[in-house]
Amino acid sequence: MHNKKKIRDYGIEIGEMKKGRLNAITDVEGVKVGHVTLSEGDMQTGVTAILPHSGNVFKEKLVASSHVINGFGKSMGTVQLAELGTIETPIILTNTLSTGVAADTLIDYMLEQNPEIGRTTGTVNSVIGECNDMIINDIRGKYVKPEHIREALINCHEVFEEGAVGAGTGMLCYSLKGGIGSASRIMDFEFGSYTLGVLVLTNFGILKDFMIQGNPVGQQLKQKLDEVYKEEDKGSIMTIVATDLPVSERQLQRILKRTVTGLSRTGSIITTGSGEVVIGFSTATKIPHDEKTKLIAIPQIPEEVIDVAFRAVGEATEEAVLNSMITAHEIVGRDGNSRPALKDLLEKCNISLL
Amino acid sequence: MHNKKKIRDYGIEIGEMKKGRLNAITDVEGVKVGHVTLSEGDMQTGVTAILPHSGNVFKEKLVASSHVINGFGKSMGTVQLAELGTIETPIILTNTLSTGVAADTLIDYMLEQNPEIGRTTGTVNSVIGECNDMIINDIRGKYVKPEHIREALINCHEVFEEGAVGAGTGMLCYSLKGGIGSASRIMDFEFGSYTLGVLVLTNFGILKDFMIQGNPVGQQLKQKLDEVYKEEDKGSIMTIVATDLPVSERQLQRILKRTVTGLSRTGSIITTGSGEVVIGFSTATKIPHDEKTKLIAIPQIPEEVIDVAFRAVGEATEEAVLNSMITAHEIVGRDGNSRPALKDLLEKCNISLL
Amino acid sequence: MHNKKKIRDYGIEIGEMKKGRLNAITDVEGVKVGHVTLSEGDMQTGVTAILPHSGNVFKEKLVASSHVINGFGKSMGTVQLAELGTIETPIILTNTLSTGVAADTLIDYMLEQNPEIGRTTGTVNSVIGECNDMIINDIRGKYVKPEHIREALINCHEVFEEGAVGAGTGMLCYSLKGGIGSASRIMDFEFGSYTLGVLVLTNFGILKDFMIQGNPVGQQLKQKLDEVYKEEDKGSIMTIVATDLPVSERQLQRILKRTVTGLSRTGSIITTGSGEVVIGFSTATKIPHDEKTKLIAIPQIPEEVIDVAFRAVGEATEEAVLNSMITAHEIVGRDGNSRPALKDLLEKCNISLL
Amino acid sequence: MHNKKKIRDYGIEIGEMKKGRLNAITDVEGVKVGHVTLSEGDMQTGVTAILPHSGNVFKEKLVASSHVINGFGKSMGTVQLAELGTIETPIILTNTLSTGVAADTLIDYMLEQNPEIGRTTGTVNSVIGECNDMIINDIRGKYVKPEHIREALINCHEVFEEGAVGAGTGMLCYSLKGGIGSASRIMDFEFGSYTLGVLVLTNFGILKDFMIQGNPVGQQLKQKLDEVYKEEDKGSIMTIVATDLPVSERQLQRILKRTVTGLSRTGSIITTGSGEVVIGFSTATKIPHDEKTKLIAIPQIPEEVIDVAFRAVGEATEEAVLNSMITAHEIVGRDGNSRPALKDLLEKCNISLL
Repeated sequence: MHNKKKIRDYGIEIGEMKKGRLNAITDVEGVKVGHVTLSEGDMQTGVTAILPHSGNVFKEKLVASSHVINGFGKSMGTVQLAELGTIETPIILTNTLSTGVAADTLIDYMLEQNPEIGRTTGTVNSVIGECNDMIINDIRGKYVKPEHIREALINCHEVFEEGAVGAGTGMLCYSLKGGIGSASRIMDFEFGSYTLGVLVLTNFGILKDFMIQGNPVGQQLKQKLDEVYKEEDKGSIMTIVATDLPVSERQLQRILKRTVTGLSRTGSIITTGSGEVVIGFSTATKIPHDEKTKLIAIPQIPEEVIDVAFRAVGEATEEAVLNSMITAHEIVGRDGNSRPALKDLLEKCNISLL
Repeated sequence: MHNKKKIRDYGIEIGEMKKGRLNAITDVEGVKVGHVTLSEGDMQTGVTAILPHSGNVFKEKLVASSHVINGFGKSMGTVQLAELGTIETPIILTNTLSTGVAADTLIDYMLEQNPEIGRTTGTVNSVIGECNDMIINDIRGKYVKPEHIREALINCHEVFEEGAVGAGTGMLCYSLKGGIGSASRIMDFEFGSYTLGVLVLTNFGILKDFMIQGNPVGQQLKQKLDEVYKEEDKGSIMTIVATDLPVSERQLQRILKRTVTGLSRTGSIITTGSGEVVIGFSTATKIPHDEKTKLIAIPQIPEEVIDVAFRAVGEATEEAVLNSMITAHEIVGRDGNSRPALKDLLEKCNISLL
Repeated sequence: MHNKKKIRDYGIEIGEMKKGRLNAITDVEGVKVGHVTLSEGDMQTGVTAILPHSGNVFKEKLVASSHVINGFGKSMGTVQLAELGTIETPIILTNTLSTGVAADTLIDYMLEQNPEIGRTTGTVNSVIGECNDMIINDIRGKYVKPEHIREALINCHEVFEEGAVGAGTGMLCYSLKGGIGSASRIMDFEFGSYTLGVLVLTNFGILKDFMIQGNPVGQQLKQKLDEVYKEEDKGSIMTIVATDLPVSERQLQRILKRTVTGLSRTGSIITTGSGEVVIGFSTATKIPHDEKTKLIAIPQIPEEVIDVAFRAVGEATEEAVLNSMITAHEIVGRDGNSRPALKDLLEKCNISLL
Repeated sequence: MHNKKKIRDYGIEIGEMKKGRLNAITDVEGVKVGHVTLSEGDMQTGVTAILPHSGNVFKEKLVASSHVINGFGKSMGTVQLAELGTIETPIILTNTLSTGVAADTLIDYMLEQNPEIGRTTGTVNSVIGECNDMIINDIRGKYVKPEHIREALINCHEVFEEGAVGAGTGMLCYSLKGGIGSASRIMDFEFGSYTLGVLVLTNFGILKDFMIQGNPVGQQLKQKLDEVYKEEDKGSIMTIVATDLPVSERQLQRILKRTVTGLSRTGSIITTGSGEVVIGFSTATKIPHDEKTKLIAIPQIPEEVIDVAFRAVGEATEEAVLNSMITAHEIVGRDGNSRPALKDLLEKCNISLL
């Protein structure tokens, strides 16, 4: 694994709240992330898996919700999330045309782990997110195979790479190289301290709109660069939010909706062209599958203090987007299409972020 | 108060579940209903108030939700219900053009009871429902005054009248006289017995569609009657659901959505012309206003057993609609417009419901 | 193909509107349906494909919408339907655990027909619906393969079979054999006559709730039968609505929401256990892919007359559910599990539907 | 009327698109705005009316939509907007506790202009928005009377004041004085040029979060100021969007959702405490009331070019928020509570915005 510098290593601190230990979604205990990166020639794509907790998610579900910022996308599993307010599988991120194989393999994986599915209990709701990496990746090649989905699921860890890896291998952001980014925040309440982490798969924006802490870095770069990027924004970002804060699914959705504040502050105008979906879960309570005999008590924060989480999710999303860019390396892919790395351009153009 | 026969007194039993003691929404402990009836000449309208519990609803809120079956209506307060999942005022039902005065008076009433509103705490969310009684009532006359709203709020009781009373005074249902109806069901679970009650304000449907337990009573009546009603359906019904079942706002909304099964079985096709909104609350947990220092535990039923509530709400809604009709008396109102009472027609046409 | 009797052939006429020529969804010009039936031993499942029109749906999209009655399901593609208001692929129905392979194959099929996808234009939104046939089918066997999806897509016709065929092979309805059913209605307006067709995949309900035109046929059967069916309702129905009526996506969604009136009148209480999703489209206007240079005019009906479509969709849905049952034959499947055919039971118990 | 400097007069240009002639919502032809300002002692409140077009809005409705950013608010009329996709009254903005009287008076106003309401046609859907001005205004005093609503409706003009006027009289923004702000953008397409205008009623944010074009002006002010403001954010903003662009209600809602990008860039984290609702309409097509006999064609832009409107609405919202602050003057109100004017503080602290 590369020892990559994140945006904080350049002196950029987003917001005012403390970050978690890893400054990543895995600061939420039990959450793990795994990548499979397929990067060779025209094949520039991959898979990223997020495990909501370390046990059997089907048997111990978590409070979950989703929010559609822009629905021109092909995410799967959000209908049941809305109806039942729980998640019961890991989350798979991949390219748009590989969502079918991702769903099919995740179903197989869940069947293997839960022999009662389809026999003594019902079926299972796969949760799949996607962005379209067609510029750099030969997406029609459908290089993601079942074994890649499985490998991502099996090789999940607390420490994981960001940038042009996993599902982020072929993604773009603000006309530069994007991909996977993550960040976290610590939330202090009178009743305890909690963590909120965000992982993004970025694939949106055009260079001229790109901002870091209000500085129009994208415009500065444009003036200094000779290359002309085709400035068409297809506007996709998948955002995964994890927290150990006790919340109801309604409260969680309110939190998910605030990711857009961080997103907007990096320069996004939320263009029409692709899907921007947020999926979140709280690890605070495990909800047993098939309980029928007693009431369940779901602890939740009083609404009056939820602003702490609203601030946290905005900050972490903004920082995760920047991390997805600053950690990414240049990729030359399909038909020689390429996107430069932000870190290379900053150096080349002699731009300091401070 | 008239000693009115409800549909069960005619031998009609809807569904299979047990009814509550009063077979009314007030079987849910703490719920009370008050009417003001304005019935004289062209003025055929009124107010119905529903108290969710006997204490200060602003300071002890209840889990609440709403569901729009058809949104061609002017209900107020549902935006905040959806965002926060709680109700903090009584519910007022009245005619469409009196919703403004109803909201204004309910605000005054809440201000008086809660001197901290607008001073040390925020404002208050009035919940108002309506149907359009313009055929029988001179709705442009705007006869509902602040004192009527107050009177309905003050004179709430467990035992209340149904039929052409309160907000139901001028309403129609299936081209006959409609109005207020109510019914309840007892729900047995392994963890205890609970009650669900429904109150409807009916103002929808045309005679030919009217069914009782699958019998096309409306068509039978049409054949026997000389009168020709202008068969235009403006399709409005307000439905209030109360329960002491511990549910989350998400679960409650799932329950509210099932009112449509009962509604449909009386013959409704849910026409375009007016509002069909369901508002519900659970008295199981009182949520304190302004709590900031500790977690709140909201007990809720396991999802696996929610079908009991789905069946209960469908049965109670169907029965409440029938009760609104069978208890209503004929009204002659604006410009001599009138609608006959179902009970009178059944007798006149010699139709037995069994 | 069997020459099957539909519910009208038993003298049952649902509602008052005229049916179309075939009394099927394919009465809407251009709509075609194809089945692949996999019925042998433990394998009792299949695929049903619906073509929205006869041309290239990706290049000529249709106004579309969806409505979730109950979201405990795994349908795919509805997020984009809601965002863009258009459908751009055929619809595939199959069993729950085969949705991944269905999506993956539908993607392949679309890529082959549209070489510009993933090259000069974006990706494609597969629309997949499902029910859970695990009682009769060995759903863990995942018998549906890519070639079955393709075959269903290729063998679409105007005339198609109903009952225990295609995706309906292993489905149950009201504890009896369910499956595919269809019906249609002619809608007359001052501005012309139009058609609305419904296709259902039924897999919900318990025997005691089953009604035909208000007659409690389910209860009559229960009393006469020795067998005791495990009366657990997993409550799933997929409903596809096609029309040539010019409507906006908003109007179309209003129509889709009214399917529940017909559904309820067959006895459904909309239980929690599975997905009930409605997907609809209008063939009235073809919306070109990639148009950028001129305004598009979408003709739509005036809202005032939409009740005609509301009545049509309720009637057609009710009749389609009944058709799915009356056309189904008994299936003995996984582990000898079986469900009888309604037509056989009526005969055996000597019950006349009239 | 004061000759006020807007944010552009300080050299701040938000975004890249051209502004309209007035740089206000009234750049959309036919749109007019009227204020009534009640500013004396403890009474610091008012009314702002927005006329969607110059004719009879009830008889010639406009395509309309709304979007809830945060639903802890008491706006009225959005249920019908969502169901029917049209607006049929002017929009009234006022303080939270005056929404009832606003609705009641708007109903009266509509009844007077349309004698057929409640006689030969149905009722009318009032659209009311609100923010809570309780800090500076004695909101419990309920100073807004019917005559103020009427006066605002009657005195609507193309040229209107911004800042601490009308409904904005007692509002705060980022702990400073907020109120009414407006801005507009010209949108160029191959098929013509169109205008989009935004009017905001701002009442959200805390000083430390306030940014202008990425500059943390709020933090700069905090460091230079002696006063300590109680930094509690009650997070409310009403946003009205008008355009002459031909759009469907679905497209319009997509545009309304993008207001949040501009809002976020001024520093908002969208706190829990109040309502943030966007209401929009398009003047491109007038939809006749009561049409029943022929199809209606609603022209709409091709989806592919909608990003132009997304950018416009973000820019105009950001600029409108800044205009609401820079045009506002200091108000000393209830119990001597006050908030300073941004323009005064900039001068006092010697901060240049460039």
